[in-house]
Amino acid sequence: MSRFASLAAFDAALADMPIADADAIAAARARQASLTKPAGSLGRLEDIAVLMAGWQGTAQPVIEHGRAAIFAGNHGFVVHGVSAFPASVTAAMVANFAAGGAAINALAKAAGLNLQVIALDLDRPTADFTTAAAMDEAECLAALSAGAAAVEPGLHLLVVGEMGIGNSTAAAALCARSYGGTPASWVGPGTGVDADGIARKVVVVEQALACHADAPDTPFEILRRLGGREIAAIAGAVLEARRLHIPVVLDGFISCAALAPLAAAVPAITDHCLAGHCSAEPGHIRLLGHLDLDPLLSLGMRLGEGSGAALAVSIIRAALATHNGMATFAQAGVADSL
Amino acid sequence: MSRFASLAAFDAALADMPIADADAIAAARARQASLTKPAGSLGRLEDIAVLMAGWQGTAQPVIEHGRAAIFAGNHGFVVHGVSAFPASVTAAMVANFAAGGAAINALAKAAGLNLQVIALDLDRPTADFTTAAAMDEAECLAALSAGAAAVEPGLHLLVVGEMGIGNSTAAAALCARSYGGTPASWVGPGTGVDADGIARKVVVVEQALACHADAPDTPFEILRRLGGREIAAIAGAVLEARRLHIPVVLDGFISCAALAPLAAAVPAITDHCLAGHCSAEPGHIRLLGHLDLDPLLSLGMRLGEGSGAALAVSIIRAALATHNGMATFAQAGVADSL
Repeated sequence: MSRFASLAAFDAALADMPIADADAIAAARARQASLTKPAGSLGRLEDIAVLMAGWQGTAQPVIEHGRAAIFAGNHGFVVHGVSAFPASVTAAMVANFAAGGAAINALAKAAGLNLQVIALDLDRPTADFTTAAAMDEAECLAALSAGAAAVEPGLHLLVVGEMGIGNSTAAAALCARSYGGTPASWVGPGTGVDADGIARKVVVVEQALACHADAPDTPFEILRRLGGREIAAIAGAVLEARRLHIPVVLDGFISCAALAPLAAAVPAITDHCLAGHCSAEPGHIRLLGHLDLDPLLSLGMRLGEGSGAALAVSIIRAALATHNGMATFAQAGVADSL
Repeated sequence: MSRFASLAAFDAALADMPIADADAIAAARARQASLTKPAGSLGRLEDIAVLMAGWQGTAQPVIEHGRAAIFAGNHGFVVHGVSAFPASVTAAMVANFAAGGAAINALAKAAGLNLQVIALDLDRPTADFTTAAAMDEAECLAALSAGAAAVEPGLHLLVVGEMGIGNSTAAAALCARSYGGTPASWVGPGTGVDADGIARKVVVVEQALACHADAPDTPFEILRRLGGREIAAIAGAVLEARRLHIPVVLDGFISCAALAPLAAAVPAITDHCLAGHCSAEPGHIRLLGHLDLDPLLSLGMRLGEGSGAALAVSIIRAALATHNGMATFAQAGVADSL
């Protein structure tokens, strides 16, 4: 049975999110204080280890089973010329993922992640959200459930990413609806449109917001009207990871925008999440602020595919390597005044 | 025979630095343009791969033999109370490195680096630079040579780092002398002194600058008067890596300050270098600007030991994984309009 077989199941997941294990957090903090380094000198590596401990419920968290789940979808509004690439590229890149030739293949392998690519009805784009809801209720629930189905008990870490020609436009619409601000303030070049393309994106977002101005202001309605299948799937995966106490690494603007409608209503949704990076997309850093997330990396990436999040996993692994592998003052016989 | 047996050898190394291989750079750029991603979408990962290509002299650079060389030294000026820790901690931490219990052990292992720790006369601190040159000419040349001896042909990447109680004070003195600015503008908390400790550090740097105000304004004289053995060793290692076309990853404020006297005279000294990270030490970001280096990471670390640089190696490995591992448009059959 699908995880989100009904709207009630989605609402319940959002209303009843588990919190991190306070005992594990305290034990991880105590362990950090016992390691042979000045207190705090490993900076964010220490915070990462403590966060992982809290969600895994153990003082010494690990990443033996890490997964990158990359969701792909197509969008009806691309007929308005919002992307530098034709919609057929979504399927072509999914084929490239399957063949092992894309950036995420190399990065997931380098990060020791199991890569799962979930293509969602690529031959059936969402409806054009400038004139209708992107998805009907059943379609949105199916996408949420597809996301949840990529997550299972026993995973130590989940990376989420996406592929979907045009989806930075949907992300901008989700952000503007969730957090306010003009469409122009949330629209950027995505993977590479020029000034005319950006102007077209702004118009499309304006039309979408106008079309759905009277819609109910709930996470589900915003997601299904202004999102897309791959975007709803990310939301479903993040919710399911939360239920299972699995920490999540978010990728770029679009992956983060998938959480915007949820976080605007329930800010704690990102408590189990790390922002893998800040992308080159101008709206991303602002969105991260709304999500209360501080990105681990900022390397000017703007590819999607979960690439920035997968890259950040090496930082998380290093954080755990120090947390679990370093000697304590007692073990090393170094004065603990250090 | 020592690499820097004479001052003339040091001056010659600085005056006659090789440049990167333009053909390899062009070939690496062409390869990047052929990979299945929008041009530029991997951001700095693309630049890293091209830089590595230029120094390794091949379109497809690798890191099979990567080394972290960590140099340790003690400083005469610590009698003035500039550190939160006694000088004995330098040797205690070197012992911890040898036993495998320090952060750099975990991080070097995670990054697939061979770790070499080179302790430089720990029982013989440098002279107190507030009243004399830290090293005489022979001592400085020996330290430079010790640095060079940690580098050998065949290395694909060199990480440099340091351990030396008090050495953020020496680093501040080197920066102030090399680039101007008040001592107070270059002094920070290091691994954790309080406001009184910072005030003491400022006074020590002021006294050191006054003592050596009339010294010749040459890289060698500044390094031997205001540096330390581990600091000079880093300069020697970076120079030797340059001679051998080995790219270098610099660590934090102190490792970078080792290059300040050299870079003030010959800015191109950092052309084969990447800044692994920007540390929490306030002067580091400004120093990186002088060195024309943009840090890969900024995670609030302030440990030294080469820890930030070793952490950054995972980013460099990922850059090469995409550069060498991704399919080209031709291989994937994806339209190269992507």
